[in-house]
Amino acid sequence: MRVSLIGAGVIGAGWAARLVENGVDAIVYDPHPEAERRLRRVLANAERAWSRLTLAPRPRASVTFAPSLAEAVREADLVQESAPEDEEAKRRLLLEVEEHARPDALVCSSTSGLLPTRLQAGMAHPERFIVGHPFNPVYLLPLVEVVAGEQTSEEALERATAFYASLGMRPLRVRREIEGFLADRLLEALWREALWLVHDDVATVEELDDALRFGPGLRFAQMGTFLTYRIAGGEEGMRHFLAQFGPALEWPWTKLTDVPELTPELVEKIATQSDSQAEGLSIDELERIRDDNLVALLQALRAHRYGAGDVLAQHEARLFAAAGADRTPAALRRPLHLYETVVHPDWVDYNGHLTEARYLHIFAEATDAFLRHVGLDADYLAGGHSAYTVETHLRHLREAAALEPLEVRTQVLGADEKRLHLFHVMSHVRTGDTLATAEHLLLHVDTAAGRASPWVEPLAGRVAEAAALHAELPVPDGAGRAVVRLGA
Amino acid sequence: MRVSLIGAGVIGAGWAARLVENGVDAIVYDPHPEAERRLRRVLANAERAWSRLTLAPRPRASVTFAPSLAEAVREADLVQESAPEDEEAKRRLLLEVEEHARPDALVCSSTSGLLPTRLQAGMAHPERFIVGHPFNPVYLLPLVEVVAGEQTSEEALERATAFYASLGMRPLRVRREIEGFLADRLLEALWREALWLVHDDVATVEELDDALRFGPGLRFAQMGTFLTYRIAGGEEGMRHFLAQFGPALEWPWTKLTDVPELTPELVEKIATQSDSQAEGLSIDELERIRDDNLVALLQALRAHRYGAGDVLAQHEARLFAAAGADRTPAALRRPLHLYETVVHPDWVDYNGHLTEARYLHIFAEATDAFLRHVGLDADYLAGGHSAYTVETHLRHLREAAALEPLEVRTQVLGADEKRLHLFHVMSHVRTGDTLATAEHLLLHVDTAAGRASPWVEPLAGRVAEAAALHAELPVPDGAGRAVVRLGA
Repeated sequence: MRVSLIGAGVIGAGWAARLVENGVDAIVYDPHPEAERRLRRVLANAERAWSRLTLAPRPRASVTFAPSLAEAVREADLVQESAPEDEEAKRRLLLEVEEHARPDALVCSSTSGLLPTRLQAGMAHPERFIVGHPFNPVYLLPLVEVVAGEQTSEEALERATAFYASLGMRPLRVRREIEGFLADRLLEALWREALWLVHDDVATVEELDDALRFGPGLRFAQMGTFLTYRIAGGEEGMRHFLAQFGPALEWPWTKLTDVPELTPELVEKIATQSDSQAEGLSIDELERIRDDNLVALLQALRAHRYGAGDVLAQHEARLFAAAGADRTPAALRRPLHLYETVVHPDWVDYNGHLTEARYLHIFAEATDAFLRHVGLDADYLAGGHSAYTVETHLRHLREAAALEPLEVRTQVLGADEKRLHLFHVMSHVRTGDTLATAEHLLLHVDTAAGRASPWVEPLAGRVAEAAALHAELPVPDGAGRAVVRLGA
Repeated sequence: MRVSLIGAGVIGAGWAARLVENGVDAIVYDPHPEAERRLRRVLANAERAWSRLTLAPRPRASVTFAPSLAEAVREADLVQESAPEDEEAKRRLLLEVEEHARPDALVCSSTSGLLPTRLQAGMAHPERFIVGHPFNPVYLLPLVEVVAGEQTSEEALERATAFYASLGMRPLRVRREIEGFLADRLLEALWREALWLVHDDVATVEELDDALRFGPGLRFAQMGTFLTYRIAGGEEGMRHFLAQFGPALEWPWTKLTDVPELTPELVEKIATQSDSQAEGLSIDELERIRDDNLVALLQALRAHRYGAGDVLAQHEARLFAAAGADRTPAALRRPLHLYETVVHPDWVDYNGHLTEARYLHIFAEATDAFLRHVGLDADYLAGGHSAYTVETHLRHLREAAALEPLEVRTQVLGADEKRLHLFHVMSHVRTGDTLATAEHLLLHVDTAAGRASPWVEPLAGRVAEAAALHAELPVPDGAGRAVVRLGA
């Protein structure tokens, strides 16, 4: 595919970046003197984003600037126009494209809301014109609205849709052309309301942004308004939800007061479409999907300590700080019983057994419980020290099924000025059977310097104390072993 | 804190779940005969979500049902009312709460948009009344809008705000009471526009949901409208953006046509507030933050193969397929390169590093990739055989941060008629640094009998072949070791 981009502003440059990251060369025309510098910056951002986004092999491609529109479009299979939202200017540009492009080249416009029927009027080959409206940043957001004008051919629509999909995008066919198409109509309503709220000093722009990103915005990353409300309707479903919230349409909850009447016909249409969208999934199942997605989204943002993810990180820090521990010496003279859990239903594999990695997950939790027990808390971490596991030996002796109760007992095998040697035994709470053992070597580190360093107080004293209390316990069965060598 | 919840529908049950997951006991009153059954279901959902959301220690708590409103509120420090949106009914309920609650108890309403001044009118102690409006699912979304009425005291506002924050929430003070507050005004505008689009057959509910979740909805999970548009304005900033898109307010891009005039004063107010919100970050920096968040959000959804994450997964599958793969015998004489991944954002701990258990998770995935490579597929499993890891030795040599690309190379150290000895090396794809090694002993089992059994074809031959191909490779560094013994 030879692609020509007319206009290299935020949207045109975003197209260039998505093309290059997916192995498609682009020829760009934009007379703005700063166009190339700005485009190179967007390409660099996109390269950084895609190198993190996926390990999938992507063919290399490049962007070249053409000195004129004529040269940019001459060889193109597809021309994507991303000029400013001025209908007359776009129409003139499209005629100029047609003058120089092959008659079978697809001609696409990135307009956010101008009508394709009006844009294609006057073209010599209007049947090959479509709107392909992407969203900023074009190189990351998959949505592209595909809109036909009255003269657009089905073949042009199909070719454009297939091309956008090949770039990792999600083409959405808009079935009836309308100003603003779908997404921007929704966003424009929200934006106009937001402008009123700032205008009337009800809120600042930051407060309005927070009202989205800490709440409903997290839902919109995975499900739209209708599926969200279907779930909110609970077991009684979409008809119930509409019956319950229908009256609110009469209330002055937005400046938008020209509302459709919720006639029985409209309720039925929405409910039927909602049933079809849900594809037979129950509210229970939809809730679980929504919650799994929300958990993953919150954790994703936590990794960057941003927005709702930062709220979570701060909350966790408080929870860790608040958790105390049993520190009586008598309790310390036995293997310590610091951790219990049940096998969570999502910890089992296709055989119905606790997965291999979850054995270590449970042992790591027990190690954390031991470290908190000897005083490794948020303050200690904030002081620039932590303890990392550097070596592990596991024996998997028995299986565990979903919901079985497990406990871990922990024995200190030894400690020196910067190391700690632990042995955990995981047992079934009811039967007492040993399910697995873990032997760990931990290293105390200076987290800023990134190297081993001696324990500092209060851990130094407590680690030594725990080791002394356990010094006379027998060495447990299975400690000190290497993995069995075959044929050695 | 003793908390009483009046009403246990979707919102009241969500409050109960957030309380319990954060160690706060709740007493619930709801006369609906199904209330307790429904609430227990929400508690189970929340327990499942929080057990995945965080490893932070959370104190246990419980929910009890009271037989009457009087008993539910008698001892409460805070009463949270979540009855249906009926102003008169809510006012009656609040008077009944006051009759039985302590005079210093905080009284809070979950209303999504009724005015606190009207709700508190008639209360004996209106100063302790506030609105605390949460978002569904209450146990996962952090936002709670905090709204005072004319008679609300600053002290009540502060106590409620601190309490909500202690539950891991993000209280947002609404500075001027208005119907629908902030988030629901924005959502209501969007919702009304969406209803028109369905009413007019421009789109189905599914198409409208897709128009959000594959595009702008991904932005809303991290940044709201104003910061998003500030970035879209590019280097020229918010004033430029408003100048460019201001005229669109006159266009019929939504049914909401009563719009504020973009006077120089309003432009200046928005631009100044936007400057303050950006906290001195340049557009470059904001773009990078946005892109990092979007990458993490897309990957989070990819983990569940949902929405935009599923689009990404399918695109990757095509890219991998297009690139082909190296399966020649010469390639087999080297350690096998069968598994690559990035560090998923939810695999890191509070230090920002890959958690201990995820090292084994990655190695277990590599083991599975090896087993598939030698022919262990669904048919083989259905035939009643599998291979279980019975012993593991891990060395953790370096840390890995979220989104870093990792690969695993696998060497067969040995095999006999029912066992397999594997050694994995995990490296950073770009730097080549070794991050960890794993040595595993696997046992082939007859799954029905639950005991070891000889390999059957096609695995028997392929395991032997893989072992023979690797027989002359040097024994890797770190193989055959036991965990270092301290003081031995």
